[in-house]
Amino acid sequence: MTGFSEKEKRAFEETLEGYLSADHPLHEALFSAMRYSALSGGKRIRPYLLVTFCRLFGGSFELALPFACALEMIHTYSLIHDDLPAMDNDDLRRGRPTNHKVYGEAAAILAGDALQAKAFEIMLSKESVAAAGASRAARAAAILAEKAGVAGMCGGQGIDLAFEGKEIAPQILLQMDLEKTGALLSAAAQMGAVLAGAPEEMLAPAREYAENLGIAFQITDDLLDLTGSEETFGKPIGSDLQNGKSTYVSLYGASGARAQAALYTEKAKAAASLLPGGGKELSELADQLIKRTY
Amino acid sequence: MTGFSEKEKRAFEETLEGYLSADHPLHEALFSAMRYSALSGGKRIRPYLLVTFCRLFGGSFELALPFACALEMIHTYSLIHDDLPAMDNDDLRRGRPTNHKVYGEAAAILAGDALQAKAFEIMLSKESVAAAGASRAARAAAILAEKAGVAGMCGGQGIDLAFEGKEIAPQILLQMDLEKTGALLSAAAQMGAVLAGAPEEMLAPAREYAENLGIAFQITDDLLDLTGSEETFGKPIGSDLQNGKSTYVSLYGASGARAQAALYTEKAKAAASLLPGGGKELSELADQLIKRTY
Repeated sequence: MTGFSEKEKRAFEETLEGYLSADHPLHEALFSAMRYSALSGGKRIRPYLLVTFCRLFGGSFELALPFACALEMIHTYSLIHDDLPAMDNDDLRRGRPTNHKVYGEAAAILAGDALQAKAFEIMLSKESVAAAGASRAARAAAILAEKAGVAGMCGGQGIDLAFEGKEIAPQILLQMDLEKTGALLSAAAQMGAVLAGAPEEMLAPAREYAENLGIAFQITDDLLDLTGSEETFGKPIGSDLQNGKSTYVSLYGASGARAQAALYTEKAKAAASLLPGGGKELSELADQLIKRTY
Repeated sequence: MTGFSEKEKRAFEETLEGYLSADHPLHEALFSAMRYSALSGGKRIRPYLLVTFCRLFGGSFELALPFACALEMIHTYSLIHDDLPAMDNDDLRRGRPTNHKVYGEAAAILAGDALQAKAFEIMLSKESVAAAGASRAARAAAILAEKAGVAGMCGGQGIDLAFEGKEIAPQILLQMDLEKTGALLSAAAQMGAVLAGAPEEMLAPAREYAENLGIAFQITDDLLDLTGSEETFGKPIGSDLQNGKSTYVSLYGASGARAQAALYTEKAKAAASLLPGGGKELSELADQLIKRTY
């Protein structure tokens, strides 16, 4: 299984938890809501990708670590907000009650907001800037800001809202998924590369790899919503269908969606082959993510 | 009246609007919700403070401008989220329907999220980094991240939630107001100073000034909630009382609160006097903000 080693996983989880320790008793309630979702055992694919790209260009795990935690915080906040009653109104996430089910809506909104701020605080901290240099730290944080915002994650969620219950054209679905899922993966890849001082011309294949991986990943998620079990998926099955959401499955059928996932996986692997060492680890990751479906 | 000159005000509003122009037709709906609140004619006190501190230490309006816009975006997102039904459930802001009343709850949450991301994108953009230098840009953005997060604005809102409908001790009310209101003003002052390369020992009086200004400002707001008119206040009068919120007015009575506002204004002016040129403009601002009440 590609991913963090046991030792790295432990270091990542401990560092993430450390960033979310209360600085004052009056802030404990808010930090508690932040930790509940951040430390709920996600797959940590984005942090792993960031670390992998950083190492690919000669950077270290330690250099990447604060940025990997920040990226995961952005991902976590987006899940908290997406699950809200006003958004997807989900009760279950990673097999546990969603944040607002436990802490209430107001605290869930606030926990998401605070996680976003914390992400930038960490990336721009004295320690991060000293380790990465101000230029690289600022650039990595700028990439994440862009990909988390309207040109990425928020933009994709906005498209999702706009087309709720409506048929969606294939090219709009593609853009939505590129933004909702591809953007943060693309940020992971580019941030890792930038932190390690990768040559500029390497950023295009990094992005290309991550975006295609993102689409394949999203299609796989759409398929899991149809064919997965609630136990392994961690959330109710069939909710897309129930919510009338257009997905690759609703547009192309299950076998068509599987073919598309395979196609985007191949595209991702082709981009990976342009990276140092032929991107072997990245190809394995792509193969592995698509296999979640079958 | 202390504040931006007409020309500066126009430049600020135009720049802010420029940052919120849609990059793609599919993002127009989200940008529209972001613009609705960001361009609703706030007093722009935070941006003005940032610019003023930048100039005080030899920096220019142009250098400060992107950071001033970013700061106002953070302030704007906090207003959008604070007004949500799950939070303060306010229908009116600056004399207009609140964001979620116009665009719906989901879009309002998302517009807030996207405004926060945009703020960091702007501060860390190639242009901002080129103008301010990576170190100063990163440090200014780090200050804002900290003051917008749990150690500041979000933390204060969290305290507010925790004490909803409960009596609040004076020292907790003070911390809440320092975080809810003082933190972003303190960020404004310190960001401006840092951008202009102010000596380190000047950051303490800058923070001191802004935090005391923030408390005076908050007390004045509490008083306006009691004695203002809906027309000039821009939102319903008496909502704090109705919501059972502890404020300086509920703790000290109107005349006690007025005395406290005067006290914190004097503290702010004392800190200002330690700044270059005796902080004359800043003292005027402090006097002016407190006069909103009477």
